[in-house]
Amino acid sequence: MDLITKTIKSIKPLDEAAMTAARARQDTLTKPAGSLGRLEELSIRLAGIQAKADPRVERKVMFTMAADHGVVAERVGNWPQEVTAQMVENFLRGGAGINVLARLAGARICFVDMGVAGDLKPHPYLVVKKVAYGTKNMCREPAMTGEEARRALETGIELVNAAADRGLDIVGTGDMGIGNTTASSAIFAAMTGMTAREVTGRGTGLSDDQLDHKISVIERALKHHHPDPKKPLDVLARVGGFEIGGLAGVMLGAAARRVPVVLDGFISGAAALIAAGLAPQVKDHLIAAHASAEAGHPLMLQSLGLTPLLSLDMRLGEGTGAALGIIIAEAAARTLNEMATFAEAGVSEGE
Amino acid sequence: MDLITKTIKSIKPLDEAAMTAARARQDTLTKPAGSLGRLEELSIRLAGIQAKADPRVERKVMFTMAADHGVVAERVGNWPQEVTAQMVENFLRGGAGINVLARLAGARICFVDMGVAGDLKPHPYLVVKKVAYGTKNMCREPAMTGEEARRALETGIELVNAAADRGLDIVGTGDMGIGNTTASSAIFAAMTGMTAREVTGRGTGLSDDQLDHKISVIERALKHHHPDPKKPLDVLARVGGFEIGGLAGVMLGAAARRVPVVLDGFISGAAALIAAGLAPQVKDHLIAAHASAEAGHPLMLQSLGLTPLLSLDMRLGEGTGAALGIIIAEAAARTLNEMATFAEAGVSEGE
Repeated sequence: MDLITKTIKSIKPLDEAAMTAARARQDTLTKPAGSLGRLEELSIRLAGIQAKADPRVERKVMFTMAADHGVVAERVGNWPQEVTAQMVENFLRGGAGINVLARLAGARICFVDMGVAGDLKPHPYLVVKKVAYGTKNMCREPAMTGEEARRALETGIELVNAAADRGLDIVGTGDMGIGNTTASSAIFAAMTGMTAREVTGRGTGLSDDQLDHKISVIERALKHHHPDPKKPLDVLARVGGFEIGGLAGVMLGAAARRVPVVLDGFISGAAALIAAGLAPQVKDHLIAAHASAEAGHPLMLQSLGLTPLLSLDMRLGEGTGAALGIIIAEAAARTLNEMATFAEAGVSEGE
Repeated sequence: MDLITKTIKSIKPLDEAAMTAARARQDTLTKPAGSLGRLEELSIRLAGIQAKADPRVERKVMFTMAADHGVVAERVGNWPQEVTAQMVENFLRGGAGINVLARLAGARICFVDMGVAGDLKPHPYLVVKKVAYGTKNMCREPAMTGEEARRALETGIELVNAAADRGLDIVGTGDMGIGNTTASSAIFAAMTGMTAREVTGRGTGLSDDQLDHKISVIERALKHHHPDPKKPLDVLARVGGFEIGGLAGVMLGAAARRVPVVLDGFISGAAALIAAGLAPQVKDHLIAAHASAEAGHPLMLQSLGLTPLLSLDMRLGEGTGAALGIIIAEAAARTLNEMATFAEAGVSEGE
């Protein structure tokens, strides 16, 4: 059996016994029942994912995957393609938003070159898993071959498996790739049947005219490929990206290892649509960190059945939202585990 | 000049130069302009409050103030009065929600007995500033004397001054007091002219009938006292609480020392209404951590002109929401200070 199929078959449902135990413990802790709101809910889901009544959020890894996109030839954004590689260099020097927020969250970052259009200088923190030097222009041809799509997913699975072998409580997903909101919008439309206009936002900051152009580019790509939502790997191949495929692999691999996945924003959401298309049960293992400011992201989360924890108008990507989400998950797990019960504390209970 | 007047006179407007410098730096950092959303906005406000282009959120103190409320004689809640003291003991043993979340935020907690109805065992972490053994029943007489109201405020000012003398970057506010949502609702109605029904929620979890009864108790108290919103100290005396007065003092004192104040939920909001009634300029120095699940809290924040950072359906009090808010404030300050600029990183800028 191939790695993708094997991984999907390994994804188990949430552990009901662990959830029941966590829920019961929540009701004995020194607080009015339910008064920690979404932290309680989240602690119970973490218990279900990890199959542990006392879920842990200690060993945290952020997967920030980078790749380039041939569709930039259609001038879909304001930033030159070399920014992808330059930002990876910035990550490796510790100067990007994700570096700061992952430090705050106490998360290690695994930076992966999934397909940057150029050779990056070797660096001890850079994992090079280049599938190709950027995708092709999806308006003219498939972004990648079917084999490349599989390779991207397998890479994500392999990386998360390696991290889980060393001990892993939670992962976050992040991305870097000039042009990747265009690919993500195309995936979103392809997987849900929504129109390009409904699913497309301003990315890093487009004008009205530029947004119209971006929508027309996505419409052309969809018309050219007629991607079939029942074939998520084919959708990824036709209109996706290498980092998106890698992140979809991280999600499947993490779910198979009972590791909760904290999703960043729009690009991670597109990856989640691919992962969930292949294995709907993966959705139970996903936690939406935030509603990003990218138009369409709230709808994307809705179609995944996820409710975001935060809403801070962020739209930076890189995993910045996921890093904050990991902190909230740690708050959820620690309140469950570290708070005293009424009996332990000798506190009278309410009627 | 008395301490309250002197403190109010010391509150300066936000520092425009620091805000301009912080805003300018945000626009040079390696990210699309504005893409950190509310973190950017918050970093700029922190700069204005601290009067520093590079605001710091390192030395953090949570003030969690406890007191009892005579109005519990009217059976406004489900929990016996002794729970206030029992929960303070739980705080001192480290077993409450606020202990866990303050640890996560890296904040020291200053626990203050502002007026618990009984003597607590001495403890190195407990600051005893008891104004009285609980308030009187506001349905029959003023909750406290005018002198006690002043004393509560002065205590908050003195405590935050002492902390600021030792070095302080941010404070959070928190409360414990069985019956204090009733006092807070009465303050809310008195300060805004809203009706008891509009401002009253279910506290720690009331049924419909219990909620109706709580509303009628608040209506009776308001009818009895006719509190005048132009006299916030008198409002505090008639329908308030000692911990609420103490927290209002913390807010005034912190603002005077240019220390940002992260508000917890409904009780902290009532304290903020008192503080802002005395000194409207204090509002610029307040940061609303979250919209609590207590009905009326969103309206309360609106009347303070504040937009909450988080919305996690929490309604525990103690400062638990504020602790999470402090983490978001640290994220805001650190991204501003620690991210590389385009020039430093050699990253090309967007058009």
